[in-house]
Order: sequence, then structure tokens, then C-alpha cells
Amino acid sequence: MLDDKDFIKSWDVPGPTKEAIRAIILYKSEVTSNDRVVDCGCGTGGITCEFSQRAKEVISIDTNPEAIKVTSKNLKKFGLGDNVTLINDDGSQALKDISDIDIAIVGGSGRQLENILDVVDEKLNSKGRIIITAILVDTKVEAINKLKDLGYNPKIMEVNVSNGRVLDRGVLMISENPIAIITAKKR
Amino acid sequence: MLDDKDFIKSWDVPGPTKEAIRAIILYKSEVTSNDRVVDCGCGTGGITCEFSQRAKEVISIDTNPEAIKVTSKNLKKFGLGDNVTLINDDGSQALKDISDIDIAIVGGSGRQLENILDVVDEKLNSKGRIIITAILVDTKVEAINKLKDLGYNPKIMEVNVSNGRVLDRGVLMISENPIAIITAKKR
Amino acid sequence: MLDDKDFIKSWDVPGPTKEAIRAIILYKSEVTSNDRVVDCGCGTGGITCEFSQRAKEVISIDTNPEAIKVTSKNLKKFGLGDNVTLINDDGSQALKDISDIDIAIVGGSGRQLENILDVVDEKLNSKGRIIITAILVDTKVEAINKLKDLGYNPKIMEVNVSNGRVLDRGVLMISENPIAIITAKKR
Amino acid sequence: MLDDKDFIKSWDVPGPTKEAIRAIILYKSEVTSNDRVVDCGCGTGGITCEFSQRAKEVISIDTNPEAIKVTSKNLKKFGLGDNVTLINDDGSQALKDISDIDIAIVGGSGRQLENILDVVDEKLNSKGRIIITAILVDTKVEAINKLKDLGYNPKIMEVNVSNGRVLDRGVLMISENPIAIITAKKR
Repeated sequence: MLDDKDFIKSWDVPGPTKEAIRAIILYKSEVTSNDRVVDCGCGTGGITCEFSQRAKEVISIDTNPEAIKVTSKNLKKFGLGDNVTLINDDGSQALKDISDIDIAIVGGSGRQLENILDVVDEKLNSKGRIIITAILVDTKVEAINKLKDLGYNPKIMEVNVSNGRVLDRGVLMISENPIAIITAKKR
Repeated sequence: MLDDKDFIKSWDVPGPTKEAIRAIILYKSEVTSNDRVVDCGCGTGGITCEFSQRAKEVISIDTNPEAIKVTSKNLKKFGLGDNVTLINDDGSQALKDISDIDIAIVGGSGRQLENILDVVDEKLNSKGRIIITAILVDTKVEAINKLKDLGYNPKIMEVNVSNGRVLDRGVLMISENPIAIITAKKR
Repeated sequence: MLDDKDFIKSWDVPGPTKEAIRAIILYKSEVTSNDRVVDCGCGTGGITCEFSQRAKEVISIDTNPEAIKVTSKNLKKFGLGDNVTLINDDGSQALKDISDIDIAIVGGSGRQLENILDVVDEKLNSKGRIIITAILVDTKVEAINKLKDLGYNPKIMEVNVSNGRVLDRGVLMISENPIAIITAKKR
Repeated sequence: MLDDKDFIKSWDVPGPTKEAIRAIILYKSEVTSNDRVVDCGCGTGGITCEFSQRAKEVISIDTNPEAIKVTSKNLKKFGLGDNVTLINDDGSQALKDISDIDIAIVGGSGRQLENILDVVDEKLNSKGRIIITAILVDTKVEAINKLKDLGYNPKIMEVNVSNGRVLDRGVLMISENPIAIITAKKR
């Protein structure tokens, strides 16, 4: 179990996908030790670090070179990364060279979500699973509609988490921002 | 309509009760221009400024002298305050000199909630309404149980609000911390 | 104060806009006793009943004749309605005959939101306010984008409410579905 | 991955702990295939079915004989249960005969939470983890305070989930009730 606050951050690579969301993504992904996972828009590396512990192979992509550096540092910090390949490129570009994907996680798409999903759909194997996290309202709609267009039966779950600060005078709950998890499976 | 970000704050008097919560409190209070309102734990003055515009009279109490100063500044800023009395004292102490209360709002109780509710119960008139806001989990339970002990039929509503930042690339939702509103009426 | 559970419902006209949402809409609307209010997609009549108590005039529109009947029954039940006109028509059609609108509330748009907002924009006076409630993710994006296209500076607030059932063994919180409130003002 | 709606239910044994909550509990539990897990208040068997797939051994307890039956049926339905022992007894009573517990999950306590935590604390091994789910506001406070009294450093996370219904006209979000997850580790 990785603690949100143990991740190394950077001024333009904000904190990792939060603990509860990582937990739900892991569960929905049905990851096994035989799986090839792509983490598209790896950011701080929260998702990469989790799947590195559970999958056969993780390929993590980000257009931002700083994100690749921060993910690399976090893998090192947590003693992970032997099964991780880091690629500093556009998601849809990098995905073209990857095949037989079991799990594709799209956490950052830089306005390229539709293009990325087109390539993901091609490269996903017959048991493949897609998981998209969305913090923008617009991304939720875009993800659902694109997955429908591609013939999937997408599901969406929105999660609002608050964490307690156990103070002397009582427990104060502090909210995380809402995040949506959109999922689909090849059929 | 007062905007959260227009309120003057201070280092140890945090931002006002948020807009959505003020709106719900106003609605639940059924305030009229004949009402005497007590704002116990007035803090930044968010509640005081709202009721000052709608009630006959508002008496605002805080143990923290800084809160009294900040509330006074905010009343001035919004052109309000002619019908407001500010008292820098313990809630349960100050309430002893006030009678025939129509609406008592308890937003800060400094571990004195039970004592304050004992006096509020005495001083509330036969149509009186009590509204308690709670940010600590413990306060929710304490408020409900004390109101039941005093013979009320309390209600509790928990509110999670997030506000959009309309960016070029889409709408990002930012959460406020959860807050509970506990209400009761004299019967 | 109207209680959600006191509203008359019908098999195809679901319960009213919930209490907390009505409260926030009232607050954001800055309604006065001089205002002409249009409630577009009045449904059960929750919004109509609230504004009937506070505005000069309410014009309530719904394409569903059953909604008009239920709103009429609820107005009668709560002793309201002298200042309410009920129109059974398409929103964008009915709005064409209404001018000098102070407050337009769009709670149901039957896929006609953009058309309705076009007419609302024309008919709203210079101090006019628009309030849209959205339960579909898609409607949130559509409302924001259309309001931006029309030159407004829209705001969006999402509200998650849960209400307590005060049981002997403790307080159980029951969630309402999330709802977004999108607002804009003429400038 | 188990789907909430695939669980067998019963009139007095409501649906399982929901998917997102099961996912977060699994993650926080850090379960391994060497772990002995106790599911205290197993209800429908949601937690039992999950840990049955991942732990060495699961001991599931419920005072309600109907819950034991339903859990048994669900284990069978999902092809699980070889490593599960079902006990129809009071939690604190049944726990007395169990030692060297790695993970104790308390999901239903029938007003016996403090007694159960006293025994759990005794029976948990040195690397043991406690996870309590609370749907009552009172249980949150009780769990936190009892764990502090027992010398733990408890954490609390509250989770509000809504799930989308992907309709032709858009995506409608339907809320689950809020639930808190309280966790602690032996130190």
C-alpha cells in the first residue's frame, strides 16, 4: 500500500492519482501477473507504481518529460520499476509501437483522448480492459461517447472521497476533488 | 448574494460558511423581517451578513476577539450591520442575557455545544428554530443526541459541494469540505 | 419552507427538485417581489411553488401535460398560485411570447437546451439571471458551452446531499443523487 | 471482479458492501495469500467473497443465521468458499476462539463494536490490520475513539460514490449512500 503523501512531486506534475482511486482502478482492472499494462499520461507515477507491483509489464507514457522524471524517481523510491518502460512521447504516437495490451489506463490525454482511444482499441487484445480517469466534466462525456462509438459498453463511476484529520477536539473531514472512472471491456 | 471570495478573512478566522451552506441555512431558518437571530460562533461573519439583510435583529457572538473584528469589517464592507449587535464572549454566557430568540444558529461552539444548547433551549421562543453547522464528525453526533435529550426531533443533512473552474480545456470541479446542518424546531 | 415529501407526485412526474437545491437556487436567483420568473420544465412544481412565494409573477412551462396538472395540484396544496401562469408547451415555443424576464430557471429541457437558451437570452432583461439544473453529465457540458457561446460567464456548482434517518441505534445517512446548478447573469 | 448486482440477497440481509468500498478495503488490507482474515458481520458476504479469492483463510461471523445462509449461497455462486469458515454467533464471542489474525474487518457490530474491538485487539498478530466500515455517523466516532483508547493511530476515509446509467439522452448519475472506512495497524 502506497501512501499519497510519500510520492515525490514536482511543480508542474501534481500529486499522484489518490489512494482510493488507485484502489478502485486496481480492482476494476482485474490485473494479473501475466498482464501487459499501458499507463497513458503517467504523471507522478501513482498508477505505474501500483501496476508495477502486480502486472508482468508496465509501459508508461507522458508527453511531459518532467512527468517521466518524476515517475522514474517514484519507482526508485518505492523499490520498483524493473518491469516498467518509460516513454516520453504523445500517447497516440507511442501506443502505435505497442501491441497485445491487456490493460490500458488513460489518466491524462492532453485533448487527445479520442485519438488515444482509437489506437488503444486497435492494440488491446481480446480480453483487454480500458480505464479512463477524468477530472474534467467534458472528459467524462467525451470518454463515454467515444467508447460507445467504438462499440464498447462503457461504465462510469464518480468518486468523492474525504479523509479525516483526527484532532484532539474531533475528526475533521477534508475533501479530495471528485474524479470519475470510466471503464470498458473488449467483447 | 454574497460571494465567498469577497469576505475579508484573517489568519486565525478562516473563510466564511460557504455560499451553498448559507443558502440552505437561510431556507431552513424560514427567516422573516420580524425575527431576532442569534449567530453563536460568528467567525468571519458569513451567517451574520446574510441574516442582517433579512431579519429584524442579529446578535452575533464569538469568544475570539479577532472574529468579532472580522465580522465587523465584513458587515461594513457589505454596507450592513445597523441591526447587528456584536458580543465578544462565551456563547453560553452571552446567551443568558438574550431572550425571545426566533432563530439560533450555532456554527462554532468551542467544545461547549451542550452548554450552549441548554441555554438556547431556554431562550428560544415557542416558534423558535435551531440550526447547527458541524464540520467535525463528533459534533454531528453530539448535536443530534443533545437535541434529542432536550425533547427535539432533530434532522441532519450533510452537504458536499464542488465548484467548477471553467478552463479552456474544460470544467474542473474543486471540492469544498463536507459540512452537516442539524436543525430542530420548538414544538 | 416546503418539505420534499409533502409534494404530490405522479407516476411519470418524479419528485420535486430537492430542498437543498431549491434553497441554493433561491439564493443564487436573488429573487425579489418585483421579479418575473420563468420555470422552464416545471415538473412537479417544486421551483414554481418556491418562487410563487417570493416573486411578482411566475410563468411555468412543461411539454408534459401531466407535469402541468401536478404543478397545479401542488400550488393548490400549498395555498399558492395566484401569481402563477401554467403553460403546456415546448419551452422554446412558449418563451417566444414572454418578455422582460428577470429570472429563467431551466430544469428540464427535453434535448432542447440550446434552443431554449437562445430564446431565454433574447427575452432576459438587462439584469436577468439564468439558472439551469442538470442531472445528466452531458447537460452540464452543454449548458456551460452554450452559455459561453452566448457571451455569458457561466458558473457551475455540483451538490451531493445526504439526509439522516435518526434511528435508535444511530444516524444513517441516505444520499440524494448529485445535481449540478449552472448559473449566469446578463452583463 | 464481482458485480454488486450478481450477489444473492435476502429480505433482511441487504445488498453487499458496494464494489468501490470492497476495492478500497482490499487495497488498505494489503492482503496476501498467507493471511488469516476475519469478516465480522459478514452480511451478504461481499467482503468474504473478495478475501476468499486472495487470503489463505477467511473466518466469517454473523449473529444473523440468514446472513450466514446468504453468504454461503454467494460463495457457492461465485465458485468460492473452500478456505472459508462460517460461524453463526456474536462477533466478540466467536473471536475468542480465533488467534493470530492478520486482518480483521468489522462491517456489522450490532451495538457491540467496542467489545468486538477489545477482542480483535487481543487476537490480532503483530502485523495485524483492522478495517471497520461505518454507515452510521455514531459508529464513526465510536470506532475512532475506541481505537485511540486501544493505542492505535486510526485513519478514516469517507466515500461517496455515484454510478452512471448510460441512457440515450445522456449519463445519469445515481448515488450510493456514504460509507466510512476506518483503519488501524498494530505497531
